Amino acid sequence: MTENNEFPIVNLINAPENPLKLIYLSCRTCYSADYPYKIWEKDADEEKMLKLVKKVLQSGHHSTIEHCQYTFTISGVTRACTHQLVRHRHMSFSQKSQRYVVEEGQFEYITPPTLKNGELHAEYDSLMRKIAELYEKMIEKGIPAEDARFILPNAATSSLVTSLNLREMIHLANLRLCVSAQHEIRKLVKKMCKLVVEKEPWLGEYLVAKCEKNGYCDEIRSCGRFPQQVR
Amino acid sequence: MTENNEFPIVNLINAPENPLKLIYLSCRTCYSADYPYKIWEKDADEEKMLKLVKKVLQSGHHSTIEHCQYTFTISGVTRACTHQLVRHRHMSFSQKSQRYVVEEGQFEYITPPTLKNGELHAEYDSLMRKIAELYEKMIEKGIPAEDARFILPNAATSSLVTSLNLREMIHLANLRLCVSAQHEIRKLVKKMCKLVVEKEPWLGEYLVAKCEKNGYCDEIRSCGRFPQQVR
Amino acid sequence: MTENNEFPIVNLINAPENPLKLIYLSCRTCYSADYPYKIWEKDADEEKMLKLVKKVLQSGHHSTIEHCQYTFTISGVTRACTHQLVRHRHMSFSQKSQRYVVEEGQFEYITPPTLKNGELHAEYDSLMRKIAELYEKMIEKGIPAEDARFILPNAATSSLVTSLNLREMIHLANLRLCVSAQHEIRKLVKKMCKLVVEKEPWLGEYLVAKCEKNGYCDEIRSCGRFPQQVR
Amino acid sequence: MTENNEFPIVNLINAPENPLKLIYLSCRTCYSADYPYKIWEKDADEEKMLKLVKKVLQSGHHSTIEHCQYTFTISGVTRACTHQLVRHRHMSFSQKSQRYVVEEGQFEYITPPTLKNGELHAEYDSLMRKIAELYEKMIEKGIPAEDARFILPNAATSSLVTSLNLREMIHLANLRLCVSAQHEIRKLVKKMCKLVVEKEPWLGEYLVAKCEKNGYCDEIRSCGRFPQQVR
Repeated sequence: MTENNEFPIVNLINAPENPLKLIYLSCRTCYSADYPYKIWEKDADEEKMLKLVKKVLQSGHHSTIEHCQYTFTISGVTRACTHQLVRHRHMSFSQKSQRYVVEEGQFEYITPPTLKNGELHAEYDSLMRKIAELYEKMIEKGIPAEDARFILPNAATSSLVTSLNLREMIHLANLRLCVSAQHEIRKLVKKMCKLVVEKEPWLGEYLVAKCEKNGYCDEIRSCGRFPQQVR
Repeated sequence: MTENNEFPIVNLINAPENPLKLIYLSCRTCYSADYPYKIWEKDADEEKMLKLVKKVLQSGHHSTIEHCQYTFTISGVTRACTHQLVRHRHMSFSQKSQRYVVEEGQFEYITPPTLKNGELHAEYDSLMRKIAELYEKMIEKGIPAEDARFILPNAATSSLVTSLNLREMIHLANLRLCVSAQHEIRKLVKKMCKLVVEKEPWLGEYLVAKCEKNGYCDEIRSCGRFPQQVR
Repeated sequence: MTENNEFPIVNLINAPENPLKLIYLSCRTCYSADYPYKIWEKDADEEKMLKLVKKVLQSGHHSTIEHCQYTFTISGVTRACTHQLVRHRHMSFSQKSQRYVVEEGQFEYITPPTLKNGELHAEYDSLMRKIAELYEKMIEKGIPAEDARFILPNAATSSLVTSLNLREMIHLANLRLCVSAQHEIRKLVKKMCKLVVEKEPWLGEYLVAKCEKNGYCDEIRSCGRFPQQVR
Repeated sequence: MTENNEFPIVNLINAPENPLKLIYLSCRTCYSADYPYKIWEKDADEEKMLKLVKKVLQSGHHSTIEHCQYTFTISGVTRACTHQLVRHRHMSFSQKSQRYVVEEGQFEYITPPTLKNGELHAEYDSLMRKIAELYEKMIEKGIPAEDARFILPNAATSSLVTSLNLREMIHLANLRLCVSAQHEIRKLVKKMCKLVVEKEPWLGEYLVAKCEKNGYCDEIRSCGRFPQQVR
């Protein structure tokens, strides 16, 4: 199979049932004499919960949102992209192994937008075919998959299951929604955030690039959307 | 309020809906060419899932179980106990603050079993009353709660919300169900495990003291239940 | 032994020999075709190193400073303080155990500044003596240390060895040098930072409260030193 | 430049001066009434230190060894290998960026042992040349390096600086010295361990594959060196 315009494919498969109430409980537990299970059992007004939670988040006490964990399935992302993604050490990953899974026929790959429809696009596709042919030959001759994959390109796609808590999700959005992030991971994180915000619209204001959060840009090369920090 | 025989009070307030399927998905994603969302959508036979998951866990690939997160509310544990608990750095905590929450009247405290009904029990309770009296006086005289609490004993109870994934839960059980762990944390972790096993009986064999897992004891002072490791 | 004006006692016992060069190496490795061991072997101009490192830190790429680790010995801090300190999950701790170490005579304790020389100071000291007396009695009667310590107050001191990398050190300073942090942990972190800055004066500008770093205050109750963030 | 028999190139560039004393201090701090800085200042007999440290490590109290951190420079490892390595979330990494560093001429790559001198070796090398040619053409036509690298293979080498503490080092050895680990990462970790053991021969018995530590094999496919665990 080759590329698909819907790539990356992202699905949210596990989320807390009531994240706002969970965060509200965590905030209240810190500042209240009540037993937390009693706070949990009581009905709470959504507006009141939102008010407290926003105040606590504003003051930077982000440990209270670690109790909300989200699990996604992801496909159609390059190994170049996943090598970046797995650098987020607060996330959990289960990724398709190129050591154990043998590619059949033309492996799936991504074409970067700067190449699409350009003069090099055909050469790019042709190289991908050559790689797939040699890969197949290697497997036939008994080279183990973990060695045959040495010729697979960064463009080859991968699949994974990943879990992260809301604190890390906000951090991920802050870093990876910046226009200086690689286009593919930006697209991926955008989709992840969209899925969360569809369920919890109030989280939209937190799942943004760092410049929107800070009001300034700290990148060496700025896109100009926000003023660069002088300090 | 004083001590309660039901202490610690532990409630499981958030858990993955289908942890076995989540772990099965993670294992399969590593070793399969299929898109994970397609594996997720397909019905899977419980026995088949259990077989794969047990095989993967046996071989030590525990990152696959990080996708299952559990959230508990806990009350009626001493600050001595929580000081140990928060040393588990893979867990998330929101704990009642002694800096902000002022104790009213006699603070809640735990009496260790070795004291109960013994000759020192009355002196213990009397000391707790004296501490509460001076604490109240300090608050009345305008000493901030964060300083008045300097006299509160380790026995004073705390409340918290905590979240941890299944990998850390197994680690917690391995360490803290050992008879050489402090009695209170052992009781606490036992209750946490019981709540998880009630939902997922197949996890029972993993949520055990390290000796049961290893088949030997590595403690310096052994309880004798398992042979001590010679190596 | 009772309190000592020099408390907490803080010593820096292990530090990287050349942290600037280590960070420079890390930054250059990311952006250079040269082998890192060759960059390391080459002499580098201090001013040039400092220029690159500051630019990289300004843009928020803080993983480059994780290679610098510092180890401190700490004594004369209360268990109230260490319960906060060990919440920093990127730090490593080896702390004196109240379960195993039996206190002899009057245990060491801290008197908070708001009590010193006030009308309650004598009552505070007298309570500490009463606690020590009952503790001693409990030990004599065969109560295990781990249970006798239930009466020890938050004010009782502890000792520990802790290690943390420079990234966490900056985070620790950002949070704990804020005037809304507890006075004791503020004093402790100030001393830790001072010891690092004595060795590396260029780090002084990073080891500051978050308001100095951000140019605004995000605390709910501000000390007024910096304007509160409006967003 | 093409492959080099000495690959990977590994250098240990930062290590604690006296790791045994540091660990001894950490163990003693937990079980002693003495101030840690006084324990640190006192001369200690090496044999006595070793005896205590080995006893503590045997009983699984591994937090005491987190105070020892090691920093390595690494070159001549494939991106396939580094994608595995960066999954160790307790390690710190600064890695050469394929987004920013443009490859000049024939990029450096590794040939897996199963291909060397075999009939496919020439085809392998020829493919690497073709990839380098198209990469060069893409760069010339103005394709950004971050997109041109989509065609670079897993075999392309990378460079990095990495730091890890002794606890993670032992974990890394336990997992990656197993013969079922990928050959390249096994070679890499072997070299890292060798450099540490050259400085600290007493650590040799800990920096081993998990089977040597456990006395049994828990892998699904065993090499047969140790009996497979029945439980």
